[in-house]
Amino acid sequence: MRYLMTFSYDGTLYNGYQKQPDKNTIQDKIEESLTKINNNEFVSLVATGRTDKGVHALNQKAHFDLNTNIRTDKLKLALNSMLPNDIYIKDICNIDNDFHARFKVLKKEYVYKINLGEYNPIDRNYIYQYNKKLNIKAMKKAIKFFVGNHNFKSFTSSDDIRESYDRIIYNAKIECKKDIISIIFIGNGFLRYMVRNMVGTLIEIGEGIKKPKDIQFILDARDRTQAGKTAPAEGLYLKNVYYK
Amino acid sequence: MRYLMTFSYDGTLYNGYQKQPDKNTIQDKIEESLTKINNNEFVSLVATGRTDKGVHALNQKAHFDLNTNIRTDKLKLALNSMLPNDIYIKDICNIDNDFHARFKVLKKEYVYKINLGEYNPIDRNYIYQYNKKLNIKAMKKAIKFFVGNHNFKSFTSSDDIRESYDRIIYNAKIECKKDIISIIFIGNGFLRYMVRNMVGTLIEIGEGIKKPKDIQFILDARDRTQAGKTAPAEGLYLKNVYYK
Repeated sequence: MRYLMTFSYDGTLYNGYQKQPDKNTIQDKIEESLTKINNNEFVSLVATGRTDKGVHALNQKAHFDLNTNIRTDKLKLALNSMLPNDIYIKDICNIDNDFHARFKVLKKEYVYKINLGEYNPIDRNYIYQYNKKLNIKAMKKAIKFFVGNHNFKSFTSSDDIRESYDRIIYNAKIECKKDIISIIFIGNGFLRYMVRNMVGTLIEIGEGIKKPKDIQFILDARDRTQAGKTAPAEGLYLKNVYYK
Repeated sequence: MRYLMTFSYDGTLYNGYQKQPDKNTIQDKIEESLTKINNNEFVSLVATGRTDKGVHALNQKAHFDLNTNIRTDKLKLALNSMLPNDIYIKDICNIDNDFHARFKVLKKEYVYKINLGEYNPIDRNYIYQYNKKLNIKAMKKAIKFFVGNHNFKSFTSSDDIRESYDRIIYNAKIECKKDIISIIFIGNGFLRYMVRNMVGTLIEIGEGIKKPKDIQFILDARDRTQAGKTAPAEGLYLKNVYYK
């Protein structure tokens, strides 16, 4: 029996989503709980993708298989009672056995939050605090260069070796609410650090270090050193995952 | 030289504002930093009042004395570089030597936040999660009974023995924004647990266990057992302090 689960987490205290030898990951915590429910027979969780250390998720999704057919509402309740309170199972449903949480992804939405106002200790793990002025108009102009089918080699981790760096960004925009900027990307997939590297580059454009049209040159260069710094993890949220 | 300081903090990891033998309090942290700046001559911090374990402050205020006249902008910078990132000094100014951060308080404003929507792990230390429906209309009716000069003995900690339980509430209101309720109290002073006990009682009114007009009976009873449960610390914020 295959199940699809939607869950949220505060990534602050974890070494990212994906399993690690130290066990301090979201995947480890959920697999441990699922395995207990499954009479200690190991249950493997297959998520839409990883999120890095300190990155949060509002709607991460994953599938898993159980030999028994458990009522999904009871399963949700049981898991939430076992999990630490910085991980929350929002929904579980039954799904076809050929469904795959990673391979069947159509679109993913990420949001990156920046505070340009006064520092608030309560937001320190949830919004990137930026103490210089940013030219939002320039950033809004720049972000449009990311939309479309591009090779994003310049915006991935330099040790991320893979066959294809091509990804499609369907939508990219910047929304402002008081002093909080939200940078939103919707795409068919994202390379490692890609959102944070795009954000770091947009910040340099906002500061005037780079120009909006430089995005095109950076994309064409296919060279990580041409893009800006990696923005810190705490501002990043996996907001939504869409399936076919 | 007397200084007045405005500061914010995330109370999650502390045993409250006020000094404790274990040193894990906001006051201890700031006094330690001030003392270092003062060439290790102890500096005592006098705040408007304490906040309990887990309670946050957006604009707490305190005064302190230094023998030397340090530029307030430099002092702010030095303190923020020494303090942990869950405490933030927002402002420091010079003030008359007869000013007193506690005795000169005119009004204090507290906010209590409740989430009636889906649990969000990111807010777990900052908003009280409440999973039952509340009758907001009844709560709005009830809160008005707190306004005025009353004896609040029913709403303070039962071991809080003092001469007078009289306090004036100038304004009390409930604001709703999507699933988040903010309960706001402005008064000339608040007894220990008073805001959380008023909120706990309002919740029982929202649930229908008590009626709005019961507030008047509870005030008259001057008996802690007549009021509702103490609402948890994480939803409470000291928002503002006003001086003459």
